[in-house]
Amino acid sequence: MDAIFDSTDAVRNANPLKHAREFVYSSPIKLERGGCLSEVRVTYETYGELNARKGNAVLICHAISGDSHVAAHDPSDGTGWWEIMVGSGKPIDTDKYFVICPNFLGGCRGTTGPDSINPDTGTRYGLDFPEITIGDIVEVDCLLIDSFGITRLLSVIGGSLGGVVTLEWATRFPDRVLSAIPLATAAHMTSQGLAFDIVARNAIQSDPNYFGGRYYEKGVIPASGLAIARMLGHITYLSRESMMKKFDSTRNQAREIETTFETKFSVGSYLAYQGGKFVERFDANSYVALTTAIDNFDLGGTEDDLRKALRRSMCRWLILSFTTDWLFPSFLSRELVDALLASDKRVSYCDIPSECGHDGFLLPDEFELYGEMIRSFLSNVSFELLSGGVPQFDRPDRIDYEQILDLIPRGARVLDLGCGNGGLLARLRQRGGCRVQGIEIKEKYVLRCVDRGLDVVQADLNEGLSAFSDHQFDFVVLSKTLQTVRDVEFVLDEMLRVGVRGIVSFPNLGFHEHRRRLMEEGLAPKLEPDTSKEWYNTSEVRFLTLADFNDFCNKKEINVHHCIAIDTRQQKQIDQNPNQNADVAILVLSK
Amino acid sequence: MDAIFDSTDAVRNANPLKHAREFVYSSPIKLERGGCLSEVRVTYETYGELNARKGNAVLICHAISGDSHVAAHDPSDGTGWWEIMVGSGKPIDTDKYFVICPNFLGGCRGTTGPDSINPDTGTRYGLDFPEITIGDIVEVDCLLIDSFGITRLLSVIGGSLGGVVTLEWATRFPDRVLSAIPLATAAHMTSQGLAFDIVARNAIQSDPNYFGGRYYEKGVIPASGLAIARMLGHITYLSRESMMKKFDSTRNQAREIETTFETKFSVGSYLAYQGGKFVERFDANSYVALTTAIDNFDLGGTEDDLRKALRRSMCRWLILSFTTDWLFPSFLSRELVDALLASDKRVSYCDIPSECGHDGFLLPDEFELYGEMIRSFLSNVSFELLSGGVPQFDRPDRIDYEQILDLIPRGARVLDLGCGNGGLLARLRQRGGCRVQGIEIKEKYVLRCVDRGLDVVQADLNEGLSAFSDHQFDFVVLSKTLQTVRDVEFVLDEMLRVGVRGIVSFPNLGFHEHRRRLMEEGLAPKLEPDTSKEWYNTSEVRFLTLADFNDFCNKKEINVHHCIAIDTRQQKQIDQNPNQNADVAILVLSK
Repeated sequence: MDAIFDSTDAVRNANPLKHAREFVYSSPIKLERGGCLSEVRVTYETYGELNARKGNAVLICHAISGDSHVAAHDPSDGTGWWEIMVGSGKPIDTDKYFVICPNFLGGCRGTTGPDSINPDTGTRYGLDFPEITIGDIVEVDCLLIDSFGITRLLSVIGGSLGGVVTLEWATRFPDRVLSAIPLATAAHMTSQGLAFDIVARNAIQSDPNYFGGRYYEKGVIPASGLAIARMLGHITYLSRESMMKKFDSTRNQAREIETTFETKFSVGSYLAYQGGKFVERFDANSYVALTTAIDNFDLGGTEDDLRKALRRSMCRWLILSFTTDWLFPSFLSRELVDALLASDKRVSYCDIPSECGHDGFLLPDEFELYGEMIRSFLSNVSFELLSGGVPQFDRPDRIDYEQILDLIPRGARVLDLGCGNGGLLARLRQRGGCRVQGIEIKEKYVLRCVDRGLDVVQADLNEGLSAFSDHQFDFVVLSKTLQTVRDVEFVLDEMLRVGVRGIVSFPNLGFHEHRRRLMEEGLAPKLEPDTSKEWYNTSEVRFLTLADFNDFCNKKEINVHHCIAIDTRQQKQIDQNPNQNADVAILVLSK
Repeated sequence: MDAIFDSTDAVRNANPLKHAREFVYSSPIKLERGGCLSEVRVTYETYGELNARKGNAVLICHAISGDSHVAAHDPSDGTGWWEIMVGSGKPIDTDKYFVICPNFLGGCRGTTGPDSINPDTGTRYGLDFPEITIGDIVEVDCLLIDSFGITRLLSVIGGSLGGVVTLEWATRFPDRVLSAIPLATAAHMTSQGLAFDIVARNAIQSDPNYFGGRYYEKGVIPASGLAIARMLGHITYLSRESMMKKFDSTRNQAREIETTFETKFSVGSYLAYQGGKFVERFDANSYVALTTAIDNFDLGGTEDDLRKALRRSMCRWLILSFTTDWLFPSFLSRELVDALLASDKRVSYCDIPSECGHDGFLLPDEFELYGEMIRSFLSNVSFELLSGGVPQFDRPDRIDYEQILDLIPRGARVLDLGCGNGGLLARLRQRGGCRVQGIEIKEKYVLRCVDRGLDVVQADLNEGLSAFSDHQFDFVVLSKTLQTVRDVEFVLDEMLRVGVRGIVSFPNLGFHEHRRRLMEEGLAPKLEPDTSKEWYNTSEVRFLTLADFNDFCNKKEINVHHCIAIDTRQQKQIDQNPNQNADVAILVLSK
């Protein structure tokens, strides 16, 4: 790589990125779609210090209108686009990590793009700028990473376009990425998202000032088209809910701004303003180039293709979506998660409850949850890298966990359905040598699991386990969760499809105390006597005795291999008449 | 109204509406926003025969790009835009009803609009066409209705823009509308929907061929801008789901069409094609005028304003939304419904499960449900008008209904929560003289209720009864529904807020047979012995005895006025030890 040199010259004057540096690669670069660039310049910024082992580098990937300025470098510096996330003591802690944030190939914030001077002609590329792909962006950024002598990135992280770039990194250079955190992104755009990009490009390209992309020479810009493209973008970044909050109460109040666009509604003034502002700082050809790149990105159109693509990855994953994001809707993150789960990749996932739409990952509103998720995950990845070990935990606090642990041999692959805060999984992992994965519906428990270094995916059991193949796990555990499940038959079917064995534990309505309470007092039994929950507010919606469950297994041709009956009040195992003497039953099943 | 005459002259040659007729009102018309038109021509079509009492007229209101041609008049005629809905034997049955469908003021399909010749100048209006409102559209259509001598419309029906016009009819001329069926519509656009309209108008008005609306004189049209507006429209009419179905499998396959727009993705070719086709048949100034009218429409921005507006209405209502409609999302229909319920208007509502998005009301996919809903509703409105009576029904088939009927005095206002197929409500209505309203979650039961002529709103009880004011009903009934409710406390609180009295019935877990089954057989009681439902698939999620419920009332300071205990197996009322001897309990409560 003789052609690489690092220049600290100020980047192009137009950019107020005073701490930005420039990396120049002056050998020709062949692009995926056949084009070629005889030189590439990359504007980037760094934060923190690269450690001696070069093992603490975090690469941050920006969204479409972002740039290298992810955070301020000092108090006098301008605010960055992810100030909440990056800095001393922040989730991406610049006291611990060496942060690199480059502007992408094709952009207009310093890195080579359509508005750069083509060294072969001495004029701006314009439409001569070759078509680029997300792969090309990653190849160029990899040259930058090489220039630091970094062989493996501790993490690659980004949202939206940055998330797509993160996915490409993890699958194109699997051995160079230890962990990947794609946010608010997808393996491919929805047809709806694609349609918005197409309309945006049509608006730009049908602006008479576009001149087929050669507007630089004419001394004009396709301002109307680019502004309309940006207006559309803004609508898709916000959610319906956030737009209601922002505009509904002032619906008919125009703001006074200078514009040729309609301003009569508050939302109209806002869009006109945003469109106008964008034209001042962004290049129309860059917008066309980058949206085309993301539109062409497709990690796998079918489930099989997607699994194949993600099977290449070797990193740990944390994937986050935002519930009201309709540009990159949550189900597309779930597709990524499901494909990774199918290949036994280590993945955690949470659908962050948010009203902020696609912009959620940039905003402070839900930062407490997603910021902590990222902090915990990075911390654990870093800890594992440094120690090679597993965090230690307390003993489990539930007697049924003890029993379940005894039923699972060391080294078994275990899926825990409704894993709560990960008590069982943590203990299994601590014992060592096994693949353990949790499924949990509540965000706070997902966070707790991630904090414990566990892999946990947020999902509703009632929707099934379609991500997993038959007998993918040795054991699938459903511990004190059966009684909260609506569709019991479906969940048990799925459990016994995915697991060679299933382990189920549930409170036994047949316990003598429950019988007595109904018979003698005429009151509904309380299955969890310690809690303050009553018949009207318990999360338990299924009431069954051990005998009922045995009947069920018989009817459904489910094999019962073991049955452990426990009286948890007396902390002892029951042998005689378990349907009467045990308040909790644990069964090992198969089909 | 001396200035009215009915001309059967062919409408403008450009319109292939061979059965269309023209109504001319040649006195000046003052418009709401200050403008004036010295003459108005309305193109319309009619189907069926107006009966002697002029009581069977149904006015159909079209969507933004629609026109008077709602259905074919004979086999040789072109297909109409709502062919599935209108015709002999169809839901809007032209054998029974006299159907009128006018093209709207401001349109470009025959009725006076910006591309019409201004009789004062002899040239097209262009931007001299005054700003119109939804109110103006209705005023003009009312002149047409007057011309038939129709004093009251049996029904006004329409979706999208047509739905908005329907709302305006029902509130502007309350005594002239017997029933209103607004579909896929709202009291006002969301800020998101508004934003799309604004971007569309910006695209049209920044097209250099727009010439400030005077493009007719220049012999050009703002084709790019109008096409882009239409592309945007199409995205908002489809749902994400329907776009996936339509385009995902052929994502990268461009279709060969002649266009200057991008075609590389299948969805891009589609949009380019739709945009191009629209430009051939629609006028840009009409698009601006009609979208501006709907954007300015606001029946009430606050809950209070909306209630006030809808309180004026005197008609029966059937409101339908479509689950994946994101241009006029279901919650906006619910706002209409809630405002009507608050004023004790007769309203039925269903959120039609559909993948078709906003276009749902035009498509055959869910026609079986929404078509039947409209057919049943219209039939009942017509029946009530003709007979002045109430349809007769069979006796209720449930003993608890008999008991509940006895508890409710004639003339009482009754709200039935979880009303099922309306068995109790039908009987109450048959007894006469009372306001009865049902709430039900399942579409098939909503349809059954509408078919019985009842007023029923589809809603989830767990979301509360916020539409209703304190003590709006004399009785609120929760009959055999309590045990299926997750949030029991909230639902009971709401019930006793809205009703002077609440009537609750539920299966009693304390019944001797249930006790015996658990005590002696060690099996979970089956609360509904007749059904095939077991512990793992019953819809019952709450298990309580009569004693539990009495404890609950005591704790929550709920007054129990009556308690009727029944042994439904023996069809008899129980006086002695009801918690042991009754399998069903009915209680009258208040707070």
